[in-house]
Amino acid sequence: MQTKTTPGAMLKAMREKPPLVQCITNYVAMNIAANVLLAAGASPAMVHAAEEAGEFAGIASALTINIGTLSTQWIDGMQAAAKAATSAGKPWVLDPVAHYATAFRRNAVADLLALRPTVIRGNASEIIALAGGESRGQGVDSRDPVKQAEGSARWLAERQRAVVAVTGAVDFVTDGERAVRIEGGSALMPQVTALGCSLTCLVGAFAATAPEDIFGATVAALSTFAIAGEEAALGAAGPGSFSWRFLDALAALDAETLDARARISAA
Amino acid sequence: MQTKTTPGAMLKAMREKPPLVQCITNYVAMNIAANVLLAAGASPAMVHAAEEAGEFAGIASALTINIGTLSTQWIDGMQAAAKAATSAGKPWVLDPVAHYATAFRRNAVADLLALRPTVIRGNASEIIALAGGESRGQGVDSRDPVKQAEGSARWLAERQRAVVAVTGAVDFVTDGERAVRIEGGSALMPQVTALGCSLTCLVGAFAATAPEDIFGATVAALSTFAIAGEEAALGAAGPGSFSWRFLDALAALDAETLDARARISAA
Amino acid sequence: MQTKTTPGAMLKAMREKPPLVQCITNYVAMNIAANVLLAAGASPAMVHAAEEAGEFAGIASALTINIGTLSTQWIDGMQAAAKAATSAGKPWVLDPVAHYATAFRRNAVADLLALRPTVIRGNASEIIALAGGESRGQGVDSRDPVKQAEGSARWLAERQRAVVAVTGAVDFVTDGERAVRIEGGSALMPQVTALGCSLTCLVGAFAATAPEDIFGATVAALSTFAIAGEEAALGAAGPGSFSWRFLDALAALDAETLDARARISAA
Repeated sequence: MQTKTTPGAMLKAMREKPPLVQCITNYVAMNIAANVLLAAGASPAMVHAAEEAGEFAGIASALTINIGTLSTQWIDGMQAAAKAATSAGKPWVLDPVAHYATAFRRNAVADLLALRPTVIRGNASEIIALAGGESRGQGVDSRDPVKQAEGSARWLAERQRAVVAVTGAVDFVTDGERAVRIEGGSALMPQVTALGCSLTCLVGAFAATAPEDIFGATVAALSTFAIAGEEAALGAAGPGSFSWRFLDALAALDAETLDARARISAA
Repeated sequence: MQTKTTPGAMLKAMREKPPLVQCITNYVAMNIAANVLLAAGASPAMVHAAEEAGEFAGIASALTINIGTLSTQWIDGMQAAAKAATSAGKPWVLDPVAHYATAFRRNAVADLLALRPTVIRGNASEIIALAGGESRGQGVDSRDPVKQAEGSARWLAERQRAVVAVTGAVDFVTDGERAVRIEGGSALMPQVTALGCSLTCLVGAFAATAPEDIFGATVAALSTFAIAGEEAALGAAGPGSFSWRFLDALAALDAETLDARARISAA
Repeated sequence: MQTKTTPGAMLKAMREKPPLVQCITNYVAMNIAANVLLAAGASPAMVHAAEEAGEFAGIASALTINIGTLSTQWIDGMQAAAKAATSAGKPWVLDPVAHYATAFRRNAVADLLALRPTVIRGNASEIIALAGGESRGQGVDSRDPVKQAEGSARWLAERQRAVVAVTGAVDFVTDGERAVRIEGGSALMPQVTALGCSLTCLVGAFAATAPEDIFGATVAALSTFAIAGEEAALGAAGPGSFSWRFLDALAALDAETLDARARISAA
């Protein structure tokens, strides 16, 4: 297997062999998440029904699960897919959207954590609450800075033996031992709905490309998002014009630019 | 409580303390409605499942219910949320999309009306049919002018003790006693799907901000939409370019501009 | 009934009397598909629930069914609607998204084929697999050129007594006897999610306008898409800017331009 040592090398490898990524995501995110994967060069498949989610996980190269708009039936599909991915040795990513908000979500996430996600991506409030801390999240919005979630993320990564990514103004990624911060993005990004959910799907795409280096793949996905976000913000006059410019920027981003501009530092 | 006497003052108050708005809306509208709330400055949460919709209504500051893509399970979630909102004294908004089209919708809306929505927003055909009149609606489209629905709106407002908003080329809002017309918007707006559904969610955001003045909050939401629509239409070459310009215009609209440009007249 | 002999004449007729098109489509496609129909001049209604889909099919002028995000309950709605459309003599279009991927999809599509769709639209991999051939489709993406699917399409059209449309870089349409190829579009189109699904809905709109000439209606829908796609690509810098330009181009396309630019050749 070719060594893919930088975000740019991983992006290039992804485009050379577009991975099929099964995304179980919420209704708000489905369209933009699929467009994000296509723009980045991956092949999205939104397959969630209990009747086929497990079977499909055997075909896909990675799986992502987001609990944004949950129901009992979808939980069945999520669990079937997570089990199938794990037993096939394929990476899967959990996005525990607003899991602290209701008992239904808390239970669903506890059950999914027991199925051992490869990566967990959330905002600071979500990661703090997952680690048992007191978060100030309101609805789906984080009200805590990423910095405050770093300890929680390290604890969670160790306990779950997973890579944990906390995204916000400055992102934080850890596998319990290593940890980095990633700068970039734009203040317009939280004004566009479901970009975080889309990033979860992109982490799945990079994890499919570099399953031997899940930490590096997660860092690569977040760096890609950060640089495309900076680029898109240049010409944007608001969240509407940012949104389509972001897709253009993702599609136009090449390996060299990504490696030259990514701002990743040890934490 | 600070008095919020103008649409601009309400918009400013909303941005200073972004209300969490629970939106139970249809699959077509979810993404654009969430983006509209974010651009305006509110915090959307698309939570509809029967398993959690009632619990979440206790957390949110307002609730909106739209029957665009209905199913038996969603009706359970809608009813649980409406009951919880009402018993917590929080405003909720009903959007009876194409309720005249099938028996399933007619029954669902009759049951929701019995739960006493705070605001009802619809197009002219929908409001006429709700008041028992003969509407010419086809599918989800109104085929009646707003003017023709004004009597129906007054009757419905009195009977339901609710604020009723009829939106179209010129909007009409009444609480059964007071009534105003609101001018603005653009002919491109009906060419973009789910903008009316998004407006319903925005009415919820303003109602959360000014629960002591639901009539004023409804007028403020409609005025905000109308002025942002006018602004967006200036540079638009069609429905595609209108759509993202509309989000930019909503985000850029400030209190002073809104108050200076809103065209609200007694009816 | 007026003869509508060209794509442009059909487009004009559609706009003069916008047909109500019932679209049962997937969650990813709903918003963009509705916007495509509105931009083209038709009236979309996303109605899929088993509780009302059959009743609604009696009101609509055409029906489209897409299995992109399937569940057992939705299959009930699809079947009820297909039966109601057929028994009311209204055209319906089947889009067998990635039907080869799971047993659940294969069974759903076999049952829908037995209900005799008026038109079947798919990518090359889907059509080849429907005809029993060996397709190389991965997830929802075609991996086969349209050319390779032409024989399968002819066979399927004869066997199903349906019009079959294979879309890709150059489209192919046949009713088993006649066959044409349609050039146009843009390489950016496969980078935008759900444009193929949206085209299925547009085929429904044209079929509603010219039920007496389903072959011609299908060709007209595909030509409209191809020319709008070419036009949109002119100013686009990537998939994000292509997407909204495509809606603008659809709305701006007139009958004369369509007829002058459509490149349709016998196959």
